[in-house]
Amino acid sequence: MIIHMTEGATPDQTERVIERIQADYGLLCETIVGYDSTVIGVKGIAGIVDEGRISELPGVHRVIRITEKYKDASRNFQKEDTIIEVGGASIGGRNLTILGGPCAIENEAQALASARIAKDAGVDVLRAFVDKSRTSPYDYRGLPLEAGLEIAAQMKAETGLPTASELIDLRHLDAFLKCGIDIIQVGARSAQYSPLLEELSRIDVPVVLKHGLGNDLNEWLSAAAFIMSGVDREGRNVGHGNRKVILCYRGIKSFEVETRFANDIAMIPRVRLKSHLPLIGDPSHSSGDKSLVERVAYALVAAGANGYEFDIHSNPAEARVDGAQAVNVEAARIVENSRRLHAMLGDVGIASGTSVAAAALGAVGS
Amino acid sequence: MIIHMTEGATPDQTERVIERIQADYGLLCETIVGYDSTVIGVKGIAGIVDEGRISELPGVHRVIRITEKYKDASRNFQKEDTIIEVGGASIGGRNLTILGGPCAIENEAQALASARIAKDAGVDVLRAFVDKSRTSPYDYRGLPLEAGLEIAAQMKAETGLPTASELIDLRHLDAFLKCGIDIIQVGARSAQYSPLLEELSRIDVPVVLKHGLGNDLNEWLSAAAFIMSGVDREGRNVGHGNRKVILCYRGIKSFEVETRFANDIAMIPRVRLKSHLPLIGDPSHSSGDKSLVERVAYALVAAGANGYEFDIHSNPAEARVDGAQAVNVEAARIVENSRRLHAMLGDVGIASGTSVAAAALGAVGS
Amino acid sequence: MIIHMTEGATPDQTERVIERIQADYGLLCETIVGYDSTVIGVKGIAGIVDEGRISELPGVHRVIRITEKYKDASRNFQKEDTIIEVGGASIGGRNLTILGGPCAIENEAQALASARIAKDAGVDVLRAFVDKSRTSPYDYRGLPLEAGLEIAAQMKAETGLPTASELIDLRHLDAFLKCGIDIIQVGARSAQYSPLLEELSRIDVPVVLKHGLGNDLNEWLSAAAFIMSGVDREGRNVGHGNRKVILCYRGIKSFEVETRFANDIAMIPRVRLKSHLPLIGDPSHSSGDKSLVERVAYALVAAGANGYEFDIHSNPAEARVDGAQAVNVEAARIVENSRRLHAMLGDVGIASGTSVAAAALGAVGS
Amino acid sequence: MIIHMTEGATPDQTERVIERIQADYGLLCETIVGYDSTVIGVKGIAGIVDEGRISELPGVHRVIRITEKYKDASRNFQKEDTIIEVGGASIGGRNLTILGGPCAIENEAQALASARIAKDAGVDVLRAFVDKSRTSPYDYRGLPLEAGLEIAAQMKAETGLPTASELIDLRHLDAFLKCGIDIIQVGARSAQYSPLLEELSRIDVPVVLKHGLGNDLNEWLSAAAFIMSGVDREGRNVGHGNRKVILCYRGIKSFEVETRFANDIAMIPRVRLKSHLPLIGDPSHSSGDKSLVERVAYALVAAGANGYEFDIHSNPAEARVDGAQAVNVEAARIVENSRRLHAMLGDVGIASGTSVAAAALGAVGS
Repeated sequence: MIIHMTEGATPDQTERVIERIQADYGLLCETIVGYDSTVIGVKGIAGIVDEGRISELPGVHRVIRITEKYKDASRNFQKEDTIIEVGGASIGGRNLTILGGPCAIENEAQALASARIAKDAGVDVLRAFVDKSRTSPYDYRGLPLEAGLEIAAQMKAETGLPTASELIDLRHLDAFLKCGIDIIQVGARSAQYSPLLEELSRIDVPVVLKHGLGNDLNEWLSAAAFIMSGVDREGRNVGHGNRKVILCYRGIKSFEVETRFANDIAMIPRVRLKSHLPLIGDPSHSSGDKSLVERVAYALVAAGANGYEFDIHSNPAEARVDGAQAVNVEAARIVENSRRLHAMLGDVGIASGTSVAAAALGAVGS
Repeated sequence: MIIHMTEGATPDQTERVIERIQADYGLLCETIVGYDSTVIGVKGIAGIVDEGRISELPGVHRVIRITEKYKDASRNFQKEDTIIEVGGASIGGRNLTILGGPCAIENEAQALASARIAKDAGVDVLRAFVDKSRTSPYDYRGLPLEAGLEIAAQMKAETGLPTASELIDLRHLDAFLKCGIDIIQVGARSAQYSPLLEELSRIDVPVVLKHGLGNDLNEWLSAAAFIMSGVDREGRNVGHGNRKVILCYRGIKSFEVETRFANDIAMIPRVRLKSHLPLIGDPSHSSGDKSLVERVAYALVAAGANGYEFDIHSNPAEARVDGAQAVNVEAARIVENSRRLHAMLGDVGIASGTSVAAAALGAVGS
Repeated sequence: MIIHMTEGATPDQTERVIERIQADYGLLCETIVGYDSTVIGVKGIAGIVDEGRISELPGVHRVIRITEKYKDASRNFQKEDTIIEVGGASIGGRNLTILGGPCAIENEAQALASARIAKDAGVDVLRAFVDKSRTSPYDYRGLPLEAGLEIAAQMKAETGLPTASELIDLRHLDAFLKCGIDIIQVGARSAQYSPLLEELSRIDVPVVLKHGLGNDLNEWLSAAAFIMSGVDREGRNVGHGNRKVILCYRGIKSFEVETRFANDIAMIPRVRLKSHLPLIGDPSHSSGDKSLVERVAYALVAAGANGYEFDIHSNPAEARVDGAQAVNVEAARIVENSRRLHAMLGDVGIASGTSVAAAALGAVGS
Repeated sequence: MIIHMTEGATPDQTERVIERIQADYGLLCETIVGYDSTVIGVKGIAGIVDEGRISELPGVHRVIRITEKYKDASRNFQKEDTIIEVGGASIGGRNLTILGGPCAIENEAQALASARIAKDAGVDVLRAFVDKSRTSPYDYRGLPLEAGLEIAAQMKAETGLPTASELIDLRHLDAFLKCGIDIIQVGARSAQYSPLLEELSRIDVPVVLKHGLGNDLNEWLSAAAFIMSGVDREGRNVGHGNRKVILCYRGIKSFEVETRFANDIAMIPRVRLKSHLPLIGDPSHSSGDKSLVERVAYALVAAGANGYEFDIHSNPAEARVDGAQAVNVEAARIVENSRRLHAMLGDVGIASGTSVAAAALGAVGS
């Protein structure tokens, strides 16, 4: 952590900052007295320092964090890729994991048909979404919980695949676990809701963590820290913490209206560089348009993602799902091409594990 | 609702869309067959139509919503300003309501001293924040719940002011109500967490609703609809719904790093035009910098907000709060100037209530 | 074009809008009178209608454009991919074109060495940038024009490759053409500067057109229309217009600080769907970080781009360029893997030419 | 300037950075060797250091600028407000300056009528816009140059007010000056076009400088430096430089579609803190909607802007301008209320001139 004092800061003010950091956090400082202002460098792991408290001290111009606060998810604190084993799937590292299935369970027939298509397409993990998080209360929010979970269990039984489902209401967690859900997903709208994240810190089931549509990497990995750290409200490490977190990048809000979210592909290699956690993408929800999904899925793999999740719909006789027919046909092809692409590129140009330090040596000029 | 068919859409596809809308929602359509494509207009209140379902039909290019989905909060459905009475304060309409107090209760002495400063400065509502929503689990998150609530009750008793507090964990709602909290605040990180919003639809206490840092107006007012509508998961109106919602605009994420959030001042008159709900701002959290707060507070009032909430800190001998000293001195001045400004401008140029239609007649050329 | 009247609009106001559109643009209208407001549909090619003028008429609530205004670049007006031939390279359609070379010509030795590396790596087009557009006047802005152009000519002669260079000052155009520059690039800072774009409408040399860092697709393709249309200030078609425009997507500004720009990969398939023009990416400038470039380049190809341009630096003994050494080594590998990837995926999932209408039939549910 | 070395950086790499900075820029460094990485502090005015060059050196993780590069516009280099005198108007400091007039000169009658309304409303500076910068070549771009300038001269003669006009094509500068234009405006689309900015560095006429819709403060004030510094392409100070720059904030692009641009009101006090240049706003173009303009204008004054510019339209019998009628009526009221508001608030809470250092002492906690 570096503290930049204002131009007019007095030596006394600088001294007080140094004392505060030593008194509150037990860390030592050194100073560089420059031409028109002074810089204080904090030595030691400054992740615990609350920059808000320091920036309020008189004479402080700016507090610049050097070590990330989200240490649990950071490669600075764990060099090796985290690999998560679940129901036969191995997520992270050099593996490519594809999750597929219906965006929402609407009824038994639709759900089971969709599950079969996903299974046949060769996905590794089945998506069986019971709760459906929506913008408006007037949108469809899924079947009643028990009915939905029952169908999810059938989908899992029928395909034999590990099954992921989004948990919205933290009070439903036990029901989800009892139903045999193998992976809990946290959606964009819950991504910074700490009571839910803290509940997930107490279990041993893997969590797919999306970020909010207005969140940056620091906020996203700090949300992961709520699950991983097991630090309670009083700041005590209470002996738990769930380290099985899978990051899912889903794009952020931008001013461009032609795509649903800005699916910044450079975030894939960047996040793999900054975090040891498995990283997947979401070509369906980020694009919001079927005609974009296939190529975005390939781009995610080419960028070095550890996989992706995507919507697979079935469409029986009903007119409503006519339009989605092509997805059936395409699902198998998308999965197959993704695996070929992944095999072809291998690890080339991916900075992870022990190669991180080397990869970070220098930036392309602007 | 307008449905724009693709250029190559067949008459059969157009017919199917019209049938679907009539069958599922009981609404009639008319079509305009243009040079290269067809447009379908849905007649009647299309707020209930799920555009996602329609946009999946073959031949549909784009679904354009004409009536807002967030009808509960919309001026299209209630012309008159909603005015909320709470503990002697009257929020909305022509009133200016100022909420002030400490950002977090740290201990009894700091909290009571801050409350007194706020009271002396002339605020209408006291802020007494027990839970503190944070980005990282390593940040300070407030005193233990019971201790915090006890101090909040003391603050209320000492000042005699209606008291607002942020609720994060929905399981704490009863404790908040039992403690006598008069206004429940929903923060940015919980702003789209529907289980919390639905709990608040069951009470009769006013709610200050912020929006998420990545939310637009549609998402924000749709969140309000979760509180106001009392529609349950199955889409049934279950006989409740809390219409006492106060909107709090707090700026959105942008690429500009010089301010914490983009505090788009044009949103103040825009939201007042679109919604009948009281609208306040937050000069402290939107700016993130004490040297900006005072003028941003004035700008909010000048723009036509119904008030604002701001952080007032006490600072006893302890060095830590030296930096905030000026806030004590300034709080009374800020409140006083805000009231003078509000009195001076009155209603001029504010489009609300019956003047809405007139105000919306035409846009300044670009 | 659809015109949505306000709720309180009178029949007279509706009539006046219809008359105005017929009188000024010779287009007919139809209306749909809905439950609470009226919608006017304009029949015919409404691309020429100035929505600003219409939206100022009394009673108009919103003008919704159905046909794009940027018709020159739109697939609605040209179904087949534009393919541009230049010095042996064929850009667009099913071809993959890679442009590489130094970001700025610093001196003869560095420039020629970089050009040789690019040639050896197998690029199709050489980048030889003489003018360097910078944020600050204190940044390095390139050699004097004549000296720079002379070296650019040497680079072209030495490699035998078609050569691209960025034109900033419109008064330098003749010197660029005389020097033998084969492709003129327009950078982000000039992307909406119409006098420059209009100069380029008068030549027959291909133009690589970036978009500004705050531009959306409509603004970008409208800038292309300045080059392509040959419409002058008075709106007259003055008999020229340069249709050899290559779009270069380079990411947009966002709130995420971990990457330089948000390189929204879904824009690659989206822009190819909306425009017939060749589309390339820029992994170097969009990422701003050498450790991200390789995988972003692969992602661009996987997403369906027609190619990309990237920075290749030479680095003689001087310490300064040590850090960039890896780029030499990597350049050939990046080009080779890109070509393998492109060959492997072919056209699968790319919606272009006659397949556009089919691809646009329906959107993945949200 | 602070240079943060990577964790694995060797002492040799650190040494090389220090040598490079001393050799190239004559500046000394000090280092702080921390727990897991080293920080280098550059002493002296590091504004001249090209961070791009330094960040490419091996072992460098991040270069953090402490002193702004846009020194010409920075309060760090000039404490006192710049005040610009032009035709009787005094812009900057404690003055409130209002610019008004038609957005485009359409014909003599409309232009002169609009000018009279602006004059009667009490504006300080007349807007007389001849060139009209547009997104699309198919939009109205103004009368032919000579005809437009002739009318502009009439408008100035008739009102006796100093007159501002936007210059797009740098080749028109002489004609503008010959016509008697008193203030040259640079619009958003030209805001980073350096050849135009450099032309304006050679004249002594005040310049209103907007920022691009994707520009941050650093880019905006760096654009001002192109006008102010008189530094040429080779980095030589060539004896000129136009310091009469008026900044005009006009909002930035955001994901919110309810307003045209995000008019971040906190930027008003922030920019006044960072720069000594006069700062005005643009309620018309930032909002894009007549029903928002009045209150946004008040908010700009309340936030501490030195003024604003706004569109005033005349509207003879012609139907087209009926909708704008209210603007005539409102213009005088808006100007009058703005002046009352400015008088009422005075300097309170404005951090400028000598009070800057004090105002910057500490930030409100988050």
